[in-house]
Amino acid sequence: MVDDLDEFARTVFEGQKFSAHLEAKLGPVSAGKAEISIELKEFHKQQHGFAHGGVVSYLADNSIAYAGGLAMGGNALVSEYKINYVRPGVGKTLVARAEAIAVGRSQAVCQSRVYGVAEDGTEKLCAIAQGTVVPAPDP
Amino acid sequence: MVDDLDEFARTVFEGQKFSAHLEAKLGPVSAGKAEISIELKEFHKQQHGFAHGGVVSYLADNSIAYAGGLAMGGNALVSEYKINYVRPGVGKTLVARAEAIAVGRSQAVCQSRVYGVAEDGTEKLCAIAQGTVVPAPDP
Amino acid sequence: MVDDLDEFARTVFEGQKFSAHLEAKLGPVSAGKAEISIELKEFHKQQHGFAHGGVVSYLADNSIAYAGGLAMGGNALVSEYKINYVRPGVGKTLVARAEAIAVGRSQAVCQSRVYGVAEDGTEKLCAIAQGTVVPAPDP
Amino acid sequence: MVDDLDEFARTVFEGQKFSAHLEAKLGPVSAGKAEISIELKEFHKQQHGFAHGGVVSYLADNSIAYAGGLAMGGNALVSEYKINYVRPGVGKTLVARAEAIAVGRSQAVCQSRVYGVAEDGTEKLCAIAQGTVVPAPDP
Repeated sequence: MVDDLDEFARTVFEGQKFSAHLEAKLGPVSAGKAEISIELKEFHKQQHGFAHGGVVSYLADNSIAYAGGLAMGGNALVSEYKINYVRPGVGKTLVARAEAIAVGRSQAVCQSRVYGVAEDGTEKLCAIAQGTVVPAPDP
Repeated sequence: MVDDLDEFARTVFEGQKFSAHLEAKLGPVSAGKAEISIELKEFHKQQHGFAHGGVVSYLADNSIAYAGGLAMGGNALVSEYKINYVRPGVGKTLVARAEAIAVGRSQAVCQSRVYGVAEDGTEKLCAIAQGTVVPAPDP
Repeated sequence: MVDDLDEFARTVFEGQKFSAHLEAKLGPVSAGKAEISIELKEFHKQQHGFAHGGVVSYLADNSIAYAGGLAMGGNALVSEYKINYVRPGVGKTLVARAEAIAVGRSQAVCQSRVYGVAEDGTEKLCAIAQGTVVPAPDP
Repeated sequence: MVDDLDEFARTVFEGQKFSAHLEAKLGPVSAGKAEISIELKEFHKQQHGFAHGGVVSYLADNSIAYAGGLAMGGNALVSEYKINYVRPGVGKTLVARAEAIAVGRSQAVCQSRVYGVAEDGTEKLCAIAQGTVVPAPDP
């Protein structure tokens, strides 16, 4: 079990080169909760000008990983998840908020909601996800 | 219904700025089948040096979109999918191969498998996905 | 759109012979919400004496169908869902509570939680589900 | 690891009172493969005269449990799965065929397809599922 969840989470996040490539930012975290956001740029988009599903999926997957990992108190991996896209990913920013719903020793089942946030702060739900986080094997 | 599926698929793919940002390549496509690959670079990785789940998810999501869209013959969207990660995403290249399993007018249910391909061409399964593709509303 | 959601829901439920075969009961319903419960009997069990996954799945699937159908105001079908079992299905009763999270004209994405309820009323979460409800084609 | 997979599977199946309540039959099994079928009766149906989604789900869930458990060689549980219904469950019989796709020590990821079988033996795909099987804790 790590002592300082916030520091632990930020150190892991800085080690994720893919998160940097997407210009993602880790927001507030706590045991069983995590927020990750992306300010939308042209390179995040698909052919219709919306955020690509891969961007929304990244946010869901990674927010679930942090919520579950922090709930279990250490290194963790998403073993599986499902996502429903419910509205195009538009706005100034996309933000994913995940929460661990059922936490045990061997897994944490988490849910995440991804919102498109407009310039004025209005949020619209654009995806809902549910997945399983498991402790990572020691490196 | 579009006439030339291959040309249609490549035009749509070129319009996906996020696919370019990930340096993804559209492989062979046909009605109900699609392949997308990524040569792994540092920027695709997570903290343990494996491909980030977001990269694997992108490949699953997007290959499902193409397999389903081409099965239905036009613009399409993934409405939902689930993915099981079964092995770390490692290798020279990751390749996703998707197939439409059940195609109707209002949806195509597809499956995709993502493989890590070593320098010598050996493939190892790293993820399995299943999802729903629906026709895109006219722009 | 039906006028009396409660009456509509109960009429549909009475038409489900499988629900009667499982001795399931429709609890309170409203637009976007539904509860279904089963008092556990021997015939609901698997080899370890817990409720069979098929019983828990039935509760998740059917509660999602009602929450989504009532949110959209008419006959509806579950097109897909996923479920995570998080604890054995034990107790005097299993109860599923579903809610429509994102409702549009063509689909309602819903979540359901299934609880085992002890003799003294204590509830323990035993499964979490997420799925898509679509309007049923006219018969 | 059990010695005789077929005998083991049949003994477990006989212990499932819910399977008996649904009049389900365990078909051929082997390491990583399992078939379960149900001859459709009135009590399996929903309000439109099709097999209830709970029946189709039971078949998917339980066939996945057997395919995964037999692949890992012992008692096992489904920890999660997702199912896409693609056609109404109709016919003389419903049959689910599951296969373990990726088998490790701690999990087996499996897929199942559920078919409606007509009097003349013609099969129509009615659902596709994917899920995770984990070893059961010792009783």
